Amino acid sequence: MALETVSTNTAFGGTQGVYRHKSKETRTDMTFAVYLPPQAGNGHKLPVLWYLSGLTCTHANVMEKGEYRRACAEHGIIFVAPDTSPRGEGVADDEAYDMGQGAGFYLDATEEPWAEHFRMESYIMKELPGIIEENFTADMTRQSITGHSMGGHGALTLALKNPGTFRSVSAFAPIASPLSCQWGQKALGGYLGGDQSSWRRHDTVALIEDGAHMREILVDQGDADGFLKDQLKPDLLKVACEKADISLNFRLQPGYDHSYYFISTFMAEHIDWHANKLGI
Amino acid sequence: MALETVSTNTAFGGTQGVYRHKSKETRTDMTFAVYLPPQAGNGHKLPVLWYLSGLTCTHANVMEKGEYRRACAEHGIIFVAPDTSPRGEGVADDEAYDMGQGAGFYLDATEEPWAEHFRMESYIMKELPGIIEENFTADMTRQSITGHSMGGHGALTLALKNPGTFRSVSAFAPIASPLSCQWGQKALGGYLGGDQSSWRRHDTVALIEDGAHMREILVDQGDADGFLKDQLKPDLLKVACEKADISLNFRLQPGYDHSYYFISTFMAEHIDWHANKLGI
Repeated sequence: MALETVSTNTAFGGTQGVYRHKSKETRTDMTFAVYLPPQAGNGHKLPVLWYLSGLTCTHANVMEKGEYRRACAEHGIIFVAPDTSPRGEGVADDEAYDMGQGAGFYLDATEEPWAEHFRMESYIMKELPGIIEENFTADMTRQSITGHSMGGHGALTLALKNPGTFRSVSAFAPIASPLSCQWGQKALGGYLGGDQSSWRRHDTVALIEDGAHMREILVDQGDADGFLKDQLKPDLLKVACEKADISLNFRLQPGYDHSYYFISTFMAEHIDWHANKLGI
Repeated sequence: MALETVSTNTAFGGTQGVYRHKSKETRTDMTFAVYLPPQAGNGHKLPVLWYLSGLTCTHANVMEKGEYRRACAEHGIIFVAPDTSPRGEGVADDEAYDMGQGAGFYLDATEEPWAEHFRMESYIMKELPGIIEENFTADMTRQSITGHSMGGHGALTLALKNPGTFRSVSAFAPIASPLSCQWGQKALGGYLGGDQSSWRRHDTVALIEDGAHMREILVDQGDADGFLKDQLKPDLLKVACEKADISLNFRLQPGYDHSYYFISTFMAEHIDWHANKLGI
């Protein structure tokens, strides 16, 4: 698998890289960021923390603003940040920010004009892990996953659907139930069509209601987040976790909004938490 | 002094703010960033760390990529990041990135067309401190200063020219001697005219040669910095400090370049060092 190095920068004793490859799943070039901590130089295989980004983001937002490198360097964790959708000319798009390019919702679209390129679930779960394993000193038996907003939705649903793949899952201000908010209804309706039964595999709350299980979940949510009530709906997640005996550590953080000022504040605590679950 | 709040975001328990005001010195609107750590809420006056940015930057680069908030929150330090020049229509500019808007070099220009607005030395040393003192719980008897590249030049020259104002000064990859590099010769020639005797007050090495003194200086410099040899010239700083009995802690950091990946890696160490000098 030919991987093009877009850039590398030394940071916190390790290497922040950006890479590009031709994706078989999305049939486009895909760009992603990988932080290799200093321990990667020792030849040991290191655990991997996936970070899935939110609407409008690329790999670059968390890379520039996420403040994850110090904690990853301390623990010896490889941090992988994929893009949020296929992009480019010839790739379907929507004028709004919440559909199309930058808004892949971590699912495989079945409807036109999306089905050809919008295969983010297969890309994240099947294709990209192989590329990470092949090109970096990654221990793929030790993976964890987190994400923000749409990426929090992605982290939670992918972890729930793939038991055993991730040792732990956390999220920053996740879209808890696309079925129950405007962002999700538009995206799932567009990508998957009008039959809402097909949407349930892409909804954290519905997956839990339908029997998917994790022992525990860590979620941080700002109480000054403008999307909290209408789009994110963490109360639905709380109810579902309680019924399903999932230990949800839901932390409502006073004064915090939906931005990377919020994410960066709590990033190190999430990494510490995942490090513990990864046996570091 | 009317101060317009552009934005505030809760971060690391404090508040990252962006503010705008009409500057008497530059005769333009000026924007700057202030991080108030959580301790600011207790009514105590807190020490101030100034950060001067490099060529092409605004207040926003370090605010987004500098990773200073965790350490400032730990120590209780207010972090102030000014812009690098006046900006806007009617403000002189140069097509290149190293002159004009985004490239004020922290001096007061005497030559046309720059003299009317390019008064960054008076802005940083006279006007902005008053605005900080008036609007934030800042203890102006406890100030320190740092900066990157052109801003490292700014931090070093302003500290040397204003003994007693700053308890400590450090720099990331500073332009050590504008007199001795292309960036500086172009800028100082343009802003101050051809008489190089007027340039010496805006050159760290020349100031030290001419008798300005600090007890100690901390400098980090990446050895993979593409500007190291032709523009930054830290060897001149080393020689000048040695002759003047200034304790220069010059740390050549292997593998690091000129980017914020370098700055963010060592930011917390600089803040820790300044905190010690500020008596925290």
